[in-house]
Amino acid sequence: MNDVKLGIDKIVDVAERIRRLEVQGATNIALTAVKALNEYVQESVFKDRASKLSEVSEARSVLSTSRETEPYMRNAIKYFEWKLRNANWETREGLREVSKKILDELILNFEKSHTAIISFGSKRILDGDCILTHCHSSTVNDMLKLAKRNGSSFSVIVTETRPLYQGRITARELIEAGIETTLIVDSAARSFIKSVDLVIVGADAITSEGNVINKIGTSMIALIAHEARIPFYTISSLLKFDPQTVYGEFESIEERNSFEVWADPPEGLCIANPAFDITKRDYIHGIICEEGVISPHSILEAVYRRYPWVFTTVDN
Amino acid sequence: MNDVKLGIDKIVDVAERIRRLEVQGATNIALTAVKALNEYVQESVFKDRASKLSEVSEARSVLSTSRETEPYMRNAIKYFEWKLRNANWETREGLREVSKKILDELILNFEKSHTAIISFGSKRILDGDCILTHCHSSTVNDMLKLAKRNGSSFSVIVTETRPLYQGRITARELIEAGIETTLIVDSAARSFIKSVDLVIVGADAITSEGNVINKIGTSMIALIAHEARIPFYTISSLLKFDPQTVYGEFESIEERNSFEVWADPPEGLCIANPAFDITKRDYIHGIICEEGVISPHSILEAVYRRYPWVFTTVDN
Amino acid sequence: MNDVKLGIDKIVDVAERIRRLEVQGATNIALTAVKALNEYVQESVFKDRASKLSEVSEARSVLSTSRETEPYMRNAIKYFEWKLRNANWETREGLREVSKKILDELILNFEKSHTAIISFGSKRILDGDCILTHCHSSTVNDMLKLAKRNGSSFSVIVTETRPLYQGRITARELIEAGIETTLIVDSAARSFIKSVDLVIVGADAITSEGNVINKIGTSMIALIAHEARIPFYTISSLLKFDPQTVYGEFESIEERNSFEVWADPPEGLCIANPAFDITKRDYIHGIICEEGVISPHSILEAVYRRYPWVFTTVDN
Amino acid sequence: MNDVKLGIDKIVDVAERIRRLEVQGATNIALTAVKALNEYVQESVFKDRASKLSEVSEARSVLSTSRETEPYMRNAIKYFEWKLRNANWETREGLREVSKKILDELILNFEKSHTAIISFGSKRILDGDCILTHCHSSTVNDMLKLAKRNGSSFSVIVTETRPLYQGRITARELIEAGIETTLIVDSAARSFIKSVDLVIVGADAITSEGNVINKIGTSMIALIAHEARIPFYTISSLLKFDPQTVYGEFESIEERNSFEVWADPPEGLCIANPAFDITKRDYIHGIICEEGVISPHSILEAVYRRYPWVFTTVDN
Amino acid sequence: MNDVKLGIDKIVDVAERIRRLEVQGATNIALTAVKALNEYVQESVFKDRASKLSEVSEARSVLSTSRETEPYMRNAIKYFEWKLRNANWETREGLREVSKKILDELILNFEKSHTAIISFGSKRILDGDCILTHCHSSTVNDMLKLAKRNGSSFSVIVTETRPLYQGRITARELIEAGIETTLIVDSAARSFIKSVDLVIVGADAITSEGNVINKIGTSMIALIAHEARIPFYTISSLLKFDPQTVYGEFESIEERNSFEVWADPPEGLCIANPAFDITKRDYIHGIICEEGVISPHSILEAVYRRYPWVFTTVDN
Amino acid sequence: MNDVKLGIDKIVDVAERIRRLEVQGATNIALTAVKALNEYVQESVFKDRASKLSEVSEARSVLSTSRETEPYMRNAIKYFEWKLRNANWETREGLREVSKKILDELILNFEKSHTAIISFGSKRILDGDCILTHCHSSTVNDMLKLAKRNGSSFSVIVTETRPLYQGRITARELIEAGIETTLIVDSAARSFIKSVDLVIVGADAITSEGNVINKIGTSMIALIAHEARIPFYTISSLLKFDPQTVYGEFESIEERNSFEVWADPPEGLCIANPAFDITKRDYIHGIICEEGVISPHSILEAVYRRYPWVFTTVDN
Repeated sequence: MNDVKLGIDKIVDVAERIRRLEVQGATNIALTAVKALNEYVQESVFKDRASKLSEVSEARSVLSTSRETEPYMRNAIKYFEWKLRNANWETREGLREVSKKILDELILNFEKSHTAIISFGSKRILDGDCILTHCHSSTVNDMLKLAKRNGSSFSVIVTETRPLYQGRITARELIEAGIETTLIVDSAARSFIKSVDLVIVGADAITSEGNVINKIGTSMIALIAHEARIPFYTISSLLKFDPQTVYGEFESIEERNSFEVWADPPEGLCIANPAFDITKRDYIHGIICEEGVISPHSILEAVYRRYPWVFTTVDN
Repeated sequence: MNDVKLGIDKIVDVAERIRRLEVQGATNIALTAVKALNEYVQESVFKDRASKLSEVSEARSVLSTSRETEPYMRNAIKYFEWKLRNANWETREGLREVSKKILDELILNFEKSHTAIISFGSKRILDGDCILTHCHSSTVNDMLKLAKRNGSSFSVIVTETRPLYQGRITARELIEAGIETTLIVDSAARSFIKSVDLVIVGADAITSEGNVINKIGTSMIALIAHEARIPFYTISSLLKFDPQTVYGEFESIEERNSFEVWADPPEGLCIANPAFDITKRDYIHGIICEEGVISPHSILEAVYRRYPWVFTTVDN
Repeated sequence: MNDVKLGIDKIVDVAERIRRLEVQGATNIALTAVKALNEYVQESVFKDRASKLSEVSEARSVLSTSRETEPYMRNAIKYFEWKLRNANWETREGLREVSKKILDELILNFEKSHTAIISFGSKRILDGDCILTHCHSSTVNDMLKLAKRNGSSFSVIVTETRPLYQGRITARELIEAGIETTLIVDSAARSFIKSVDLVIVGADAITSEGNVINKIGTSMIALIAHEARIPFYTISSLLKFDPQTVYGEFESIEERNSFEVWADPPEGLCIANPAFDITKRDYIHGIICEEGVISPHSILEAVYRRYPWVFTTVDN
Repeated sequence: MNDVKLGIDKIVDVAERIRRLEVQGATNIALTAVKALNEYVQESVFKDRASKLSEVSEARSVLSTSRETEPYMRNAIKYFEWKLRNANWETREGLREVSKKILDELILNFEKSHTAIISFGSKRILDGDCILTHCHSSTVNDMLKLAKRNGSSFSVIVTETRPLYQGRITARELIEAGIETTLIVDSAARSFIKSVDLVIVGADAITSEGNVINKIGTSMIALIAHEARIPFYTISSLLKFDPQTVYGEFESIEERNSFEVWADPPEGLCIANPAFDITKRDYIHGIICEEGVISPHSILEAVYRRYPWVFTTVDN
Repeated sequence: MNDVKLGIDKIVDVAERIRRLEVQGATNIALTAVKALNEYVQESVFKDRASKLSEVSEARSVLSTSRETEPYMRNAIKYFEWKLRNANWETREGLREVSKKILDELILNFEKSHTAIISFGSKRILDGDCILTHCHSSTVNDMLKLAKRNGSSFSVIVTETRPLYQGRITARELIEAGIETTLIVDSAARSFIKSVDLVIVGADAITSEGNVINKIGTSMIALIAHEARIPFYTISSLLKFDPQTVYGEFESIEERNSFEVWADPPEGLCIANPAFDITKRDYIHGIICEEGVISPHSILEAVYRRYPWVFTTVDN
Repeated sequence: MNDVKLGIDKIVDVAERIRRLEVQGATNIALTAVKALNEYVQESVFKDRASKLSEVSEARSVLSTSRETEPYMRNAIKYFEWKLRNANWETREGLREVSKKILDELILNFEKSHTAIISFGSKRILDGDCILTHCHSSTVNDMLKLAKRNGSSFSVIVTETRPLYQGRITARELIEAGIETTLIVDSAARSFIKSVDLVIVGADAITSEGNVINKIGTSMIALIAHEARIPFYTISSLLKFDPQTVYGEFESIEERNSFEVWADPPEGLCIANPAFDITKRDYIHGIICEEGVISPHSILEAVYRRYPWVFTTVDN
């Protein structure tokens, strides 16, 4: 019993670290959470299958609520619990083995998905293309670097991405990879769109209607691309899909601290600082995911086909 | 002869100060230039009418080329020269008197226009409205303050306006005037547009086709407003009209120093920093000017009607 | 002095009749108001030119404020006063003669304009066309009847126009004129638009930006026509132009009694009943007026050219 | 044999009552038809399985053709027959038991679906929202009442819905449920759309392309919402899907009696009175159904996944 | 009297040659017609001013009706007659002198306009631009050649322009002028539009609403450019304006012989071969004319300002 | 071994005939290729299952690369190989039998699909309709002829389809079938769209995003139909779906010989002659295929459901 307590304390710690942004990047966060669950399972005292499943459920729930816009993590830990529930084990050893296997499989699948996604995306980069991206997405960057390694000769325009200037991180990485890169302020995107061949951004979440939640400014760039008939793609794992949106929930938009925008504003001034916005499916040519290049309008069916367990209702 | 030299040196000095941005604000720049011309006329040695007109033409030309996107100044000094040419004077005293009168008249007209413009604009601000503006325009701010003084109760959203954060200046002024104000990053404009009733911005130049040149980001906000069917107005004197655009010239867009965007970028990174962009007439509901609220599509005819001298061809 | 009182009482009476909708139709209202002014001038005691002009100004002001959306009347009585001010008279007889002459001229001009407008419009009706109209406009109906008399073979679809069913009046008139007519509910307009060749409606007011105020539902039909790329025309005298809109005022939209919509609604239900809506210039192919078929974007310049006195500022 | 005759007479009676609109509301009609089928099965003489199935098929066919735009009923009775055909029974008792079970299951599923649908929809109603609806849909109303019971504070605008004023029924119900409600004429929808946050309507039928057939005026409101970028949702069971549209058939649009529009029109006037119109999928943000909130573009796949029997071809 | 007959016979001959397309090119046709009028005036017997004006009117009328879509010619001969009517002459010698002077002036004005137009247009061609044009317009070609002579380095895409392949004439001329040129089939325009910076075409007629009549296919290319946000300009003299369109007339579209499309079609096949189509003002960024670069929405006012005599009503 | 060589030579021959366009029409090409594979299997020496499968794979690969835009053929031969791999055979006789059976089944399925497709499509042709089509598609023509045989009375507009005038073939076939037909030049499509009720074209390939590759000019006509809100359908087997597009590949667009456009162009002129263009899913109302009328947005899911083997990865 004590052991379990210790275990859940560690879970609470991990959840707290995620909440305080000490862990960053959707994949990283998801893996941290699943590993914590596995460790929790490995270490805790074993009474019987039923109480163990109940403990895992509680631990998952603690992690689930650590951060608002993290469907990737929530899907990963839901998968872990779902696999555990459907596996055959009755003893402590059986459980440990199964848990380890699920974790390994999940890590492997993450890697395979990532490899497939950046491969599919890289084929869309043709010689002479100019790519526009916004913010910093490791999937976008890995895909661009792969295209470069495969011999494509292209250039990139990246927006600085206020308030936290993640575009500078993107720019630095691309310059280091030898890719010709231009940085602009966010509001200059429309002035450069005529010379762009393709816009590609990442995703923080995808809704059942096919809309994409991503860094503030994304929907504006999508609109600009739409006006100029420039293809706009999102590159992301299908596991960014948020099943709660199927059931009528809105994807909530995190409001961040105002000092990110202006450290010493005049008294009385309100500063609004939403972290994300929503890009409607009608402005998205395709989602480049582990299933290939698909229409955002059919995202729900694609998830049903590939990850049916996403729709199993595990309470919270 | 010496005196004239002295005079033209002062003109060159003033042109230089304008070039180095030591004088700011379209009205301020225009007045500085016309006052310099008047002083030049007042002080210089008088030979005869013909040589005097030739000197003024030269001085005007020096001022004209001091800065790219300043049609307001160019129209003002063109007006000064045109009035001088068409006035009756043959002696030094006659000239001095005439020159002084033109200057006084021009200042008076500027004031009258400004009063009319902010009055027309202020009537468009209704109780409960939310106004979005971009960058810093003294005409926009004066109009909002007038509406406030006239008893309207409204709020304002202002974009920070990267790279130079002029939106902060706007925000500070409005807060001091007791107007409820919210500041956002430029790329958040689309997230807030649903709650906006009216977008109003200033103008740096207006073309013969009815398009408006203004601070980078303006055309993006116009597009966002257009998508959401929110009225978008430009508030500006008709003298921001650039007659060169009638004759096929493009309005040139100033490219500013990259350190405004990022002071210490990684080596090899290109930073593009255009100061303005072009908003197409189809996205502009009206231009609020000294003639009232007019359609941008008929700007050329309105200028022809009110300021026909703008189209007199004075070489550069 | 007594006489004048009597006169102004009659003016107040006429204004009251206009307010209570006892006089209907824009032309009828305008003529009633101008005739009242003329009668007032004919009958009243004469002191001197200055005091007479002051009396006329007062009388005009009383009539002006009788009803919100009647620019046609306001322009007519402004014209009357403006002509009187600019005419040469010093005696009672001179005044009477001048006043009578202005009235006759104005009536003649109204007739000439009407004849020209319906002639220009009728040429747009081709054999086999299907015309959609909304509400009841005597100009639209006169134009359709002229086209019929000129031998055109066409059909008309008319919306019933809730809440007051003015479409039924239109339908009855057209049927009596032998024109093939179909009546539909307002919300069925989109279902029939594919078979329509031309939409033509009247106007209650035109703004300086080129927008048209007309019966509630007009802007919706304009949108439907725009979506289906069916030409949409407004047929109206240029004098429906409201000069106040130039100076920043909005055209106010009359809110009418809720029982027009539902006589015995359940308690607590709010019923909103705006009489007009605004159709944006971008949805209007042309305004068919006494100047011919013109673009709504240049309405301000057309009025300046034909009726410059509209812009003389006579205080309300 | 006599019994069967009696049975089929009852079926014909029920079909007739449905045809004469004595039974109203899609769910009600569907249940009436399925119950009639069950009763027919329970009561009739039993020869053998084959002839019984043939009789049921005939009875279903009679009900199927009772009304044009009722896919919900047609899907329900198709389900009944399909289940019967695939169930294991050879005797009268076996049949009776099976039939009763199918009926109970179907009723239960209807209830479950309804509960899920209004729950999903109610989560889309946020505090302070203004919802626009058209006509009368019990699903829309039940959903709004649930949102109200769950503590949401919102207001509703409802169009009166000519010619039969079903909007008044909606208004009355909502007022009774304590929801702040405003009624407007249909053609005023565009004037109020700026203050609307969400449009939600029901559906009479859904096509394989993802288009929605609903009360006349719906497509116009969808267009208005689209123009103003206001989300437009349809709330409906997936069983409103009409499988005939997959096979190339158009959904037929009922033309109703002209006196609904005008009881005493002038002779010679044509009155057109279509009951429904078609809203294109591009104007629909989502269909809120028992599967959750889904894109209309993937409706066909969602039906295939949930109700594959819909695509079994039972003649007529 | 005999002389006059002879004269009118020559006029009829010229009209006939124009009708049979023996004279081609709008400027050429206009000059031929005006020269014929002058010759007619020079040669004919002189009785008195009144009868002479009547003869000229008749001659003009004969020429006017020689071809449907030739407003340029009709405006030119209207100008000739209008100048003659307003000039001071009473004798044969006076008339001859005046007539010659009008002709010379008109030719000079044509040349000046042409020079101005191609100069304004050429400034819009920037280094590196790709220009798309359709059909063959000598103004477009002269403008492109001027830009080339002025040192611009650009390329041109030209559509072949079925059925008469005028695009081949354009291509040959441009290649001979040393301009890099690509020819495509008409229906490939959309495939190449992304690489185009500017579309420029000529005009056969301009309407009072600001629409442009030009070679079949023009409106399609304008639509393609509009979709891709590529600027679309018409380059043409303002005298292509057709004043009849002000008075409600439609610009008629010539239907040409079917063998131009297919010389030996199967029996029973209908071949439609309209020569022109109409491009709406909303798809036209500007009209490059002798007044400069202007918005098509204000064309009527620009013509009123520069060529007020166009609106004098001379019968037919 | 020799036999095999002979066999592969025949395969190479067939591939060559396909490359040189000696075999035409997607179905014809697919059948030719599959029959060649079957013959190859029937005739060749049999060693063992493994080496046989390897030989078939090689033969399929030779055929696969014979022509760029032929997914129909590639899918057919992929199916053949996939069935062979999954069938039970170990001996030569077993193989021969299985191969023959697969071929027969495939031919039967092709026929069934074709019958279903033209039946679904024909139901969309209503009495009085005007259909626009582009190029020559045997599926479109068979569907129109079926509609005609079923008693529909409609007319067709067909574009000539430069450069190879396939529209003339279509026109001739339709005239022979007794269908009222009008031929126009490609660029006249926009002038006739108002009178069109439905556009229907074939397809050369369909991408995973739902876009359609078809004869050059198709996307332009789709845009024209979209602008005028005229329904645009593609009629095609689902097997035109190209699975490579799922994995990020672009559908390549064949560039054909320039003499097809102009046999004797001036030296130095570039002639571009792309055979196909891409029509975006947003302009396509539906794809009429063997699954019925479906939304292009869900094409990927429909193929997954009906032809899952399409996604089995057989190298090249």
